[in-house]
Amino acid sequence: MAERLRHMTLFNDLFSFTELQQILSDESRVQRMLDFEAALAKAAARAGAIPQGAAHKIAEHCRSTDFDLSTIAKQAARSGNPAIPLVKLLTVAVARQDQDAARFVHWGATSQDVIDTGGVLQLRDALDLIEKDLGHLIDTLGQLATEYRATPCVARTWMQQALPTTFGFIVAGWLDAILRHRERLAEIRPRLLALQFGGAAGTLAALAGHGSAIAKALSEELHLTLPVVPWHTHRDRTAEAATFLGLLAGTLGKMARDISMHSQTEVGELFEPAGEGRGTSSTLPHKRNPVTCAVVLAAATRVPGLVGTMLSAMPQEYERGLGGWHAEWETLPEILRVTGGAIHHLVEMLGGLRIDKERMLQNLETTQGLIFAEAVSMALADRMGKMPAHLLLESATKKTRESHRHLKDVLNEEPGIRGHLAPAEVDRLFDVRNYLGNAEEFVETIVTRAHKVSATP
Amino acid sequence: MAERLRHMTLFNDLFSFTELQQILSDESRVQRMLDFEAALAKAAARAGAIPQGAAHKIAEHCRSTDFDLSTIAKQAARSGNPAIPLVKLLTVAVARQDQDAARFVHWGATSQDVIDTGGVLQLRDALDLIEKDLGHLIDTLGQLATEYRATPCVARTWMQQALPTTFGFIVAGWLDAILRHRERLAEIRPRLLALQFGGAAGTLAALAGHGSAIAKALSEELHLTLPVVPWHTHRDRTAEAATFLGLLAGTLGKMARDISMHSQTEVGELFEPAGEGRGTSSTLPHKRNPVTCAVVLAAATRVPGLVGTMLSAMPQEYERGLGGWHAEWETLPEILRVTGGAIHHLVEMLGGLRIDKERMLQNLETTQGLIFAEAVSMALADRMGKMPAHLLLESATKKTRESHRHLKDVLNEEPGIRGHLAPAEVDRLFDVRNYLGNAEEFVETIVTRAHKVSATP
Amino acid sequence: MAERLRHMTLFNDLFSFTELQQILSDESRVQRMLDFEAALAKAAARAGAIPQGAAHKIAEHCRSTDFDLSTIAKQAARSGNPAIPLVKLLTVAVARQDQDAARFVHWGATSQDVIDTGGVLQLRDALDLIEKDLGHLIDTLGQLATEYRATPCVARTWMQQALPTTFGFIVAGWLDAILRHRERLAEIRPRLLALQFGGAAGTLAALAGHGSAIAKALSEELHLTLPVVPWHTHRDRTAEAATFLGLLAGTLGKMARDISMHSQTEVGELFEPAGEGRGTSSTLPHKRNPVTCAVVLAAATRVPGLVGTMLSAMPQEYERGLGGWHAEWETLPEILRVTGGAIHHLVEMLGGLRIDKERMLQNLETTQGLIFAEAVSMALADRMGKMPAHLLLESATKKTRESHRHLKDVLNEEPGIRGHLAPAEVDRLFDVRNYLGNAEEFVETIVTRAHKVSATP
Amino acid sequence: MAERLRHMTLFNDLFSFTELQQILSDESRVQRMLDFEAALAKAAARAGAIPQGAAHKIAEHCRSTDFDLSTIAKQAARSGNPAIPLVKLLTVAVARQDQDAARFVHWGATSQDVIDTGGVLQLRDALDLIEKDLGHLIDTLGQLATEYRATPCVARTWMQQALPTTFGFIVAGWLDAILRHRERLAEIRPRLLALQFGGAAGTLAALAGHGSAIAKALSEELHLTLPVVPWHTHRDRTAEAATFLGLLAGTLGKMARDISMHSQTEVGELFEPAGEGRGTSSTLPHKRNPVTCAVVLAAATRVPGLVGTMLSAMPQEYERGLGGWHAEWETLPEILRVTGGAIHHLVEMLGGLRIDKERMLQNLETTQGLIFAEAVSMALADRMGKMPAHLLLESATKKTRESHRHLKDVLNEEPGIRGHLAPAEVDRLFDVRNYLGNAEEFVETIVTRAHKVSATP
Repeated sequence: MAERLRHMTLFNDLFSFTELQQILSDESRVQRMLDFEAALAKAAARAGAIPQGAAHKIAEHCRSTDFDLSTIAKQAARSGNPAIPLVKLLTVAVARQDQDAARFVHWGATSQDVIDTGGVLQLRDALDLIEKDLGHLIDTLGQLATEYRATPCVARTWMQQALPTTFGFIVAGWLDAILRHRERLAEIRPRLLALQFGGAAGTLAALAGHGSAIAKALSEELHLTLPVVPWHTHRDRTAEAATFLGLLAGTLGKMARDISMHSQTEVGELFEPAGEGRGTSSTLPHKRNPVTCAVVLAAATRVPGLVGTMLSAMPQEYERGLGGWHAEWETLPEILRVTGGAIHHLVEMLGGLRIDKERMLQNLETTQGLIFAEAVSMALADRMGKMPAHLLLESATKKTRESHRHLKDVLNEEPGIRGHLAPAEVDRLFDVRNYLGNAEEFVETIVTRAHKVSATP
Repeated sequence: MAERLRHMTLFNDLFSFTELQQILSDESRVQRMLDFEAALAKAAARAGAIPQGAAHKIAEHCRSTDFDLSTIAKQAARSGNPAIPLVKLLTVAVARQDQDAARFVHWGATSQDVIDTGGVLQLRDALDLIEKDLGHLIDTLGQLATEYRATPCVARTWMQQALPTTFGFIVAGWLDAILRHRERLAEIRPRLLALQFGGAAGTLAALAGHGSAIAKALSEELHLTLPVVPWHTHRDRTAEAATFLGLLAGTLGKMARDISMHSQTEVGELFEPAGEGRGTSSTLPHKRNPVTCAVVLAAATRVPGLVGTMLSAMPQEYERGLGGWHAEWETLPEILRVTGGAIHHLVEMLGGLRIDKERMLQNLETTQGLIFAEAVSMALADRMGKMPAHLLLESATKKTRESHRHLKDVLNEEPGIRGHLAPAEVDRLFDVRNYLGNAEEFVETIVTRAHKVSATP
Repeated sequence: MAERLRHMTLFNDLFSFTELQQILSDESRVQRMLDFEAALAKAAARAGAIPQGAAHKIAEHCRSTDFDLSTIAKQAARSGNPAIPLVKLLTVAVARQDQDAARFVHWGATSQDVIDTGGVLQLRDALDLIEKDLGHLIDTLGQLATEYRATPCVARTWMQQALPTTFGFIVAGWLDAILRHRERLAEIRPRLLALQFGGAAGTLAALAGHGSAIAKALSEELHLTLPVVPWHTHRDRTAEAATFLGLLAGTLGKMARDISMHSQTEVGELFEPAGEGRGTSSTLPHKRNPVTCAVVLAAATRVPGLVGTMLSAMPQEYERGLGGWHAEWETLPEILRVTGGAIHHLVEMLGGLRIDKERMLQNLETTQGLIFAEAVSMALADRMGKMPAHLLLESATKKTRESHRHLKDVLNEEPGIRGHLAPAEVDRLFDVRNYLGNAEEFVETIVTRAHKVSATP
Repeated sequence: MAERLRHMTLFNDLFSFTELQQILSDESRVQRMLDFEAALAKAAARAGAIPQGAAHKIAEHCRSTDFDLSTIAKQAARSGNPAIPLVKLLTVAVARQDQDAARFVHWGATSQDVIDTGGVLQLRDALDLIEKDLGHLIDTLGQLATEYRATPCVARTWMQQALPTTFGFIVAGWLDAILRHRERLAEIRPRLLALQFGGAAGTLAALAGHGSAIAKALSEELHLTLPVVPWHTHRDRTAEAATFLGLLAGTLGKMARDISMHSQTEVGELFEPAGEGRGTSSTLPHKRNPVTCAVVLAAATRVPGLVGTMLSAMPQEYERGLGGWHAEWETLPEILRVTGGAIHHLVEMLGGLRIDKERMLQNLETTQGLIFAEAVSMALADRMGKMPAHLLLESATKKTRESHRHLKDVLNEEPGIRGHLAPAEVDRLFDVRNYLGNAEEFVETIVTRAHKVSATP
């Protein structure tokens, strides 16, 4: 019971979710360090450096539930890291059963080997979850893009109505970015998920010639990349995990920014799903707050600073850093926690996103036809040159605004336009379907690509 | 039992400490929100807006131990903040005892009023601890500066030996910066520690004329500054707490950087206190790692990014932000946790700092007298002009390096120097006590100032 | 001609402005370093350490226009800072006129004394400009707040319409924050604007007893605070300039965020001033882009990371840092440049801000009365209890939404409401003037305070 | 002349270098935007959308030297970006020669198409330079690693002497990280270097069916990746350039941190190359400051915050962001400038790095044999178990420290050791060549890999 509470905090359900929190919990962290110790014992035995029997006995004791985390925490404050007390406690536990086997605990390893490799194993677990959610996100966005590929919607630039687009095309932009993130993750996985094993100075000197064999066996045991050399103070691997997540959080934040903008009372095109207690206000019964957007935007606001920390921590001294390495210990998990939380909540929310196609159409009428100004301008430019067309439109725009009439009507009265565009042609220019450009085509291309990628294992 | 575990994590003892963690725990956070609700009820009663009896009954139920944090956490994930479920649960609890009193729970307040004011109360508690440690730090540094005010030590610039100074003067520089931080804290306290109370739009409209009176009474109940207007989306107050702590963390990091540099095997002038298990290595029995320096440098590495987050979160939309506000909820406590932890551990470590005066003196001899080059140069400049003196020294320096002899001996053989400096004068220039400038005087001034400030309540 | 071009860049007019750029230009930087050298010579002469005549001659040569910046730049790349070549060139220039006087150039100072004090002088000039704009901003906001103090406007939370407020009250919130920034600036000025003068190790050892007298005279010459001890590697002063500007940029960003939200096509309540070429689009003749909001938001996006850099740079080694100090040289000017640019452009834009009171009123009608839900809810809560009132409103809200009717009409048909509220009372609740709470009162208080502060010199 | 001065600043030679500055200059920026316009005209002509003759005439006018940058800068401050005035001036210039051709300037494009694609072209140029320096760095490090692969050197952890390593192995660690950066650059190049071309809303609507053909031709003209869809507000591409450079700057900073630590007076193992005016002090004739390390560390301190800015800027609104996009314009060039500067200066410095093998050997003797404690401990652990060995060493270590004798002598007197290790075996353990583990092997593997990669085009 107490165990489960340990990684519960007031904001975990809001900013993250249970499965991810369990991966990032202290219990998992300790277990993953113990997994390293167990695998090290097995690898050393495979390499003939320690007896098979000792390896078995060590591995048997590598269960986090047998260890008192609060003792480890207290001693870590004195020794400077949790690996030292953990290894001591593990040695004592093994010794209680078999004095001889205890000799071989942590064979040739240094604290950083345990902590870094344990961290890499946690990172792998967390990235697996995030990759799963990337897959769900791609599926959901693919469906939305397809369904709404021809649904007219206002395109807005500088937060001003600009010209028509389709909602499916907006979603296609999100999808395209998310596909790039999946590509990135695939590229960096083998680089990130690398064994750390070098002993106190990275030379594996304590292993008296067994070093390479044990390192190889250890990487196999843990299914991790065997690096060319240990990377104790070369932190580009862990920092790259952070930068990948930083890029992802940025895209998620962009999606949440968009959805929250489309959800404004005055825009009213999108709504987060309703549901018992979801987004209600403590004093305003009529409100429905875009809670998931807030959560995702909070992540996108928090992650950049945390990524900055991971990069700032990189110039670590000599063969083991002082402070820089320690700065990573809580920072990378925090980045994983909030970015993983953001994508998870976003996937769930998108599954129930309400889309108001009628309102999208209505909003295209807000500007009394001004949203079609470019369409008219381009058509006119073809006939009278770009600058004159631009100037004519500028003047018509002014009249439209001042007279509160529709741009089409203003244009039809404009003497300058006659001879260039017939009224029927003008009508055609104000039909939204005639000014969507490549929107649908773009949607189809990106959805096809998403399917192709999804089909690849 | 479970309660206490909730804010235990593997790194809390290392990066922070129990008393501070308790202040920043979920229990305290909820209790501080309940303190707001209790005080609001009392204030509303004082203003005649709600019955005294109801206020008493509400206040009685404002005990965090009566609430299930995990329920609040789960519902917060739906409503978007923990105040909504907390107020609901409080209302239910009061209603169970007195239906009528329950009507007056959270009277006229909005979620942000509860969350922000609760956060300010936590901030005050945490700043009290930090201020106490600032006081301890000032005392310890004052003693060190005084004791070592005349102890010769190498001054190093660009990580190269430059010229002599005293260790007390080095400490005086730390002390001077810390005194500025205490000055800053005194200035910002009244600005930071301000009530948040405005209702849903900041206008106190729901209070039908009682607004000002309740706000005033509420600020008195909580001993908080009554702000001129509510500050829901004006986050310079909370962000200023972060920037103050960022500046403090920077100075602590500078001190830890210095101590760790002086503690290098090759310098060997300072040592963190020894003690059972303190700074031991898992594989190197002879090592004593500067654990506290690592902890403090980790804080100085982490806090800048977190401060950046608080600043990035400031441009919040309209009358209640979306995402920006939420980004603060875990960030400011984290800044408090690691900065407060850093100063606390540093104070403790400085109390036991070992200082090797002999080694300091020996290190002044490392450069075969070159460290006195400026002293000689200045004396010569007085007699032969700055540029010629500089050039003469450059040449003597070269000879000293190449011949592995002492600069004094090289100089005494230099024909250019004769007629300018007699051998006895040269001897005098190589006595460290004659080239400490204002070091002692500076120490005395700063220590006197520290005493004066300490005497002020 | 070349001179003026040097600090012109493609984005300076957009993100900053001429007067500020001149202060931050290379010419000014070099001139401010020369101002230090001139003042040092005078101070040393006043203290009797060097001849008056020499001081005069040195001072005469301290004109940046006499120096070739590109030579200094090239040599700085070898020596590691621009002070070394500048002092050399100055010495040569003085020597050409008077060999003897040349001996006394840069008397007892170190490169960091020149660079830091020169930087402080630039900082003072830039802060003077910013303070002037703070004054203009306070005046403009005071006028806007007063003029629109009773102008009804929608208050929006979570980017959703929440309840009524006044536009003047929104402005009052901005003003309140800006007044705090002016208060901060007044507090930190004497701390920031401090002389740097310590010689190579901070001990003033090279000055042979004249140190204190010269330092005092020098601080008087330059009108700078005389610090208790030199602060070469204690960077909280310069970092505090950065954090102050970071807080200010955050508030400016909040104002720009608000204005841009109110300026959306669908909201249409505020408009940046029009004008030749202002905010026009390259392809959309009808658009008017909120250019100043973009500029200010860009500043608010950029400054947090730059502030993080200044804080990260604080833990500088020993008596002169390696890399940390150098990281400040371009970072603090950049913070000044974009924050000073942001406030300057914002002041100018606010002077021409167009406010559409009609549209503000219309927007209050968007939700078919739902914006008055809290008003009704509070009135009902008074009579039937908070929870029942909340539930009744929730149901009425749902009906309003589904039936596209006005909440008032729905409520008047609600059986539950009868006996609690008469139709006339319901009418009253839907009059916006009856639900503005303390908005006007708040505006008056803050404007009065602003006037009081403005009157103080 | 004026042209060249425009991108000269006081710190460019120190923090960057001429070739890179030229790429990042305003002239280049404008030229790259004009390159887009020229290529667009050609592409539109190839697609049959505009006349070939017009395309030729437009292309002829796309020379930045014909444009007055200060006019563009001034008008950019009004229109919000430099593309609008540039396109206007280009149109005017073309019109002067051929009214008809002028119609086809900027055909179907939006400002962001020009600015983003121009920026991508600059990015490509800058990355080319950086890639070249990566190649030089790999060559230099490969030579150093090979030459010093067996040179014994102290490995230091927590800034304490830990155990022996070789200098070549230290260099191998740097090389390994740099190889990963080259791998990263190869992966991200095609993703980063993508055309931006979508017109005002990304739909290419203004091109009336020619959109896809023009986009394809345009990407061919500019040798850029043709993206699936335009990416106006999806900034992961530009942000990824920043994160790559952030990771690189971190590794460069780590190398500079190491070199500066090894260069300390008290360590004295490495020295930056000497040379006229290089690293000299203004007052200390004997000093040689590690200027390049300072420059590189400054970059590593500055880049993280700038990367944070790029990530913070990602959540851009709708189809064209407000403020976020603008925040990138000076930030990414700044990251390129200082990171590119850092690698360039580092390569140059490493070419002349002085390495003192004698001192490295001497420093292995500093601890009176304690540096071999692990070697002894491992040998003893083999015979008496890990814990007893650790305890025995801890006691011998204490005696060594207190008696100022050599660990070997202390051990030989230790009764507990007899029967486990013969004196000859003890002697062997204190021979540094017997405790270098896999250092040489690691060096060979990484150098072989570097050669293989270098051989690949």
